Amino acid sequence: MTAYESPQLTDLYQLTMVQSYLDHSMEDKAVFEFFVRKLPPQRNFLVAAGLEQLLDFLTHAHFSDDELEYLASSGYFQRNLIDYLSKFQFTGQVDAMPEGTLFFANEPVVRITASLPEALLIETRLINLLQFPILVATKAARCRLAAADKRLIDFGLRRAHGAEAGVLAARASYLAGFDGTSNVLAGQQYGIPVYGTMAHAYIQAHDSEAQAFQNFAVSQPNNLVLLIDTYDCSRGAERVIELAKQLKAKNQAIKAVRIDSGDLGHEAARVRTQLDRSGHPEIGIFASSSVDEYLIEQLKQQEAPIDGYGIGTNLTTSEDAPFLNCAYKLQEYAGIARRKRSQGKATWPGSKQVYRHLRSNGQLDYDQLCLATETPEQGQPLLQPVIRNGKRLGAPEPLDLLRQRVKQQLSMLTPALTNLSKAASFALKISPSLQQLTHQTDQRFHG
Amino acid sequence: MTAYESPQLTDLYQLTMVQSYLDHSMEDKAVFEFFVRKLPPQRNFLVAAGLEQLLDFLTHAHFSDDELEYLASSGYFQRNLIDYLSKFQFTGQVDAMPEGTLFFANEPVVRITASLPEALLIETRLINLLQFPILVATKAARCRLAAADKRLIDFGLRRAHGAEAGVLAARASYLAGFDGTSNVLAGQQYGIPVYGTMAHAYIQAHDSEAQAFQNFAVSQPNNLVLLIDTYDCSRGAERVIELAKQLKAKNQAIKAVRIDSGDLGHEAARVRTQLDRSGHPEIGIFASSSVDEYLIEQLKQQEAPIDGYGIGTNLTTSEDAPFLNCAYKLQEYAGIARRKRSQGKATWPGSKQVYRHLRSNGQLDYDQLCLATETPEQGQPLLQPVIRNGKRLGAPEPLDLLRQRVKQQLSMLTPALTNLSKAASFALKISPSLQQLTHQTDQRFHG
Repeated sequence: MTAYESPQLTDLYQLTMVQSYLDHSMEDKAVFEFFVRKLPPQRNFLVAAGLEQLLDFLTHAHFSDDELEYLASSGYFQRNLIDYLSKFQFTGQVDAMPEGTLFFANEPVVRITASLPEALLIETRLINLLQFPILVATKAARCRLAAADKRLIDFGLRRAHGAEAGVLAARASYLAGFDGTSNVLAGQQYGIPVYGTMAHAYIQAHDSEAQAFQNFAVSQPNNLVLLIDTYDCSRGAERVIELAKQLKAKNQAIKAVRIDSGDLGHEAARVRTQLDRSGHPEIGIFASSSVDEYLIEQLKQQEAPIDGYGIGTNLTTSEDAPFLNCAYKLQEYAGIARRKRSQGKATWPGSKQVYRHLRSNGQLDYDQLCLATETPEQGQPLLQPVIRNGKRLGAPEPLDLLRQRVKQQLSMLTPALTNLSKAASFALKISPSLQQLTHQTDQRFHG
Repeated sequence: MTAYESPQLTDLYQLTMVQSYLDHSMEDKAVFEFFVRKLPPQRNFLVAAGLEQLLDFLTHAHFSDDELEYLASSGYFQRNLIDYLSKFQFTGQVDAMPEGTLFFANEPVVRITASLPEALLIETRLINLLQFPILVATKAARCRLAAADKRLIDFGLRRAHGAEAGVLAARASYLAGFDGTSNVLAGQQYGIPVYGTMAHAYIQAHDSEAQAFQNFAVSQPNNLVLLIDTYDCSRGAERVIELAKQLKAKNQAIKAVRIDSGDLGHEAARVRTQLDRSGHPEIGIFASSSVDEYLIEQLKQQEAPIDGYGIGTNLTTSEDAPFLNCAYKLQEYAGIARRKRSQGKATWPGSKQVYRHLRSNGQLDYDQLCLATETPEQGQPLLQPVIRNGKRLGAPEPLDLLRQRVKQQLSMLTPALTNLSKAASFALKISPSLQQLTHQTDQRFHG
């Protein structure tokens, strides 16, 4: 459960709309879908994530007394709304792509079917809980594609946008293929492996770098990754080599050195040579500092001898694409399909399903957007029922399963879609029935 | 208080370092400073923010039993660390720039003086709690500079990176000059005015736009801002005019229309003409959809008749600069100044103070970076004592006071620094004593 479980974390307009719906007895069944209108130019696919936190929110959401008191005193609302909110719980249906599913523009990722007020009261937090994990899982999957089997650790908590972002980013990046996180709370909360050794301040606090390394070897004998760039990388590496000799007598080993500044490829090559020449090929090189998928790819091309990366800011802020053009839109109300036609923001109407089609080699071929009521003969439906009448249908999916799913799904991408720098699009076909419904909807609501 | 008050929200390396410090009796006094190494290219100044949440964290931080149990079972730590953490509370000194102070690169914004382990245990959350509010307050101040006295409302919760980011962004943007937020929880928590009316789904759920407008007028008689672009802006405006006629008979008024798509300047001009021609100059025009300071400036140049803006994603993700190159670095330990010399990440050593110098016209002239022990004859010291021996020295500063401070500080910017698109730098002079200490430090720690 996240620390914010109240539906009070919402936009005021959700409540003013619900006030009007209650006043005018508009509590019929509504269908809303969450989707991404257009992928950022730097993204050829997105990774579904955040569903677990959303389901948790939906099954716990309720207003507290002090929240209701605040709303009652705000001057915006009548007693009927406050009474309604005091009894509020989510009793609707949720269908969703399982976390770790790859998806594309205009595909519903989560579909909510509930009374109109219920569906609205959860909107803001739903978007808030889905967008960010999708951003981070996608960024992490791109890093994984670039890094192949090198070790990747999330270092991003400090530069994440607040606490929850730091915790959700650790989960989303692990889900998408990272090996662990520096974030202790996330480690405890989600059972993610945690990693960490020392900062520059540790070296600086000692009278000498050599003393700092020695002290650390005493206190963390099985966790010896030494930061060597506080003063000078090359001299730092020499001190590591000296320490390695001393430790050998005690049967203690140095796992790796860490480089956190300068030209990582250049420094790593120099340090690798130093380590190898002194007979320490077993000491790995771990790099951090402004790492992202582009830098990893560049370092790969240079054949930089780097065994793993700590990735912080660029991961947890999704720096090159810090938001998604995503939306949660009304598709049907009281049994009638609806559609937004605003310039550049038009939607496909009706309750929908996505069917995925593969090539004979197992790679993605195309997706088809259909009405939820259609049953095409081919393709795999991507949205699965996860909540019925407000109750979860299954236990949370273990993170290990989600990691396997992402790995398997990434292997289905065509080479064009795995390209990290060049935009490629994926075909979304619209079923004839959906096209027909769109036409009918436009005729009915001609503005 | 934020929902995350545990120091467990940290990077593992803080704890592995503290383990070593305890093992080697390194618990002397340390001085750390938080500063920004380099401003993003799109920022000529930054606005200090987030201090209130940091002080709250520092005066409440403690480890819970289940957190200690997790750490004890992690395999990384000895009993002496767990015992130390079980008694942990922050007992040090904090000096900081008051929230709302404008600052520049390499200036300490917050200075922590505490035992080395204490100063480390708060590092990660300190950076996490300061960086994001600074980003948002700065973005908001830029929007305020562009918008002059037009109304600005934070609409960003849904696309903020998690819940805490949404709440902190509402506070930071209000502090920096916004008029309110759509975020109900932030409104309740911080006493910020909340605003909101309707979404497109509200219009779509009704059989017609006219019916939607009428229903809303019944339920929110004093909060009538009508969204007119669901189907067609111009026809939406006609319906608003019809409704205005009907409402006049009941002495009820429409405050504004909202446009949320398309070319905002073009649509606003057309709608303004419609409203004026029909005798409704009192109905305002409120615009949203991908608004930021650049768009506001462009619309200002076009003299677009827009009275206020809702700003979401670009504000709460600080989209054009989603992170700061900021750091929290050891400057002194056991009475001896320290310095990091890593490539591109070198720091000025010692415990420091910033003195601000103004021109005779009241505008910013230059800042001087001095040793904390220096007492220059001129200039205003920017860091103020806020915590002594773990206790706050004063009550929280009211948001209204912070708003006034930002307004006053923005008026001190030179024209070059207020330019939103063209980079300008501000002079930071280094005192002779600090230069001398830097030289001495390099000689002592020659790597």
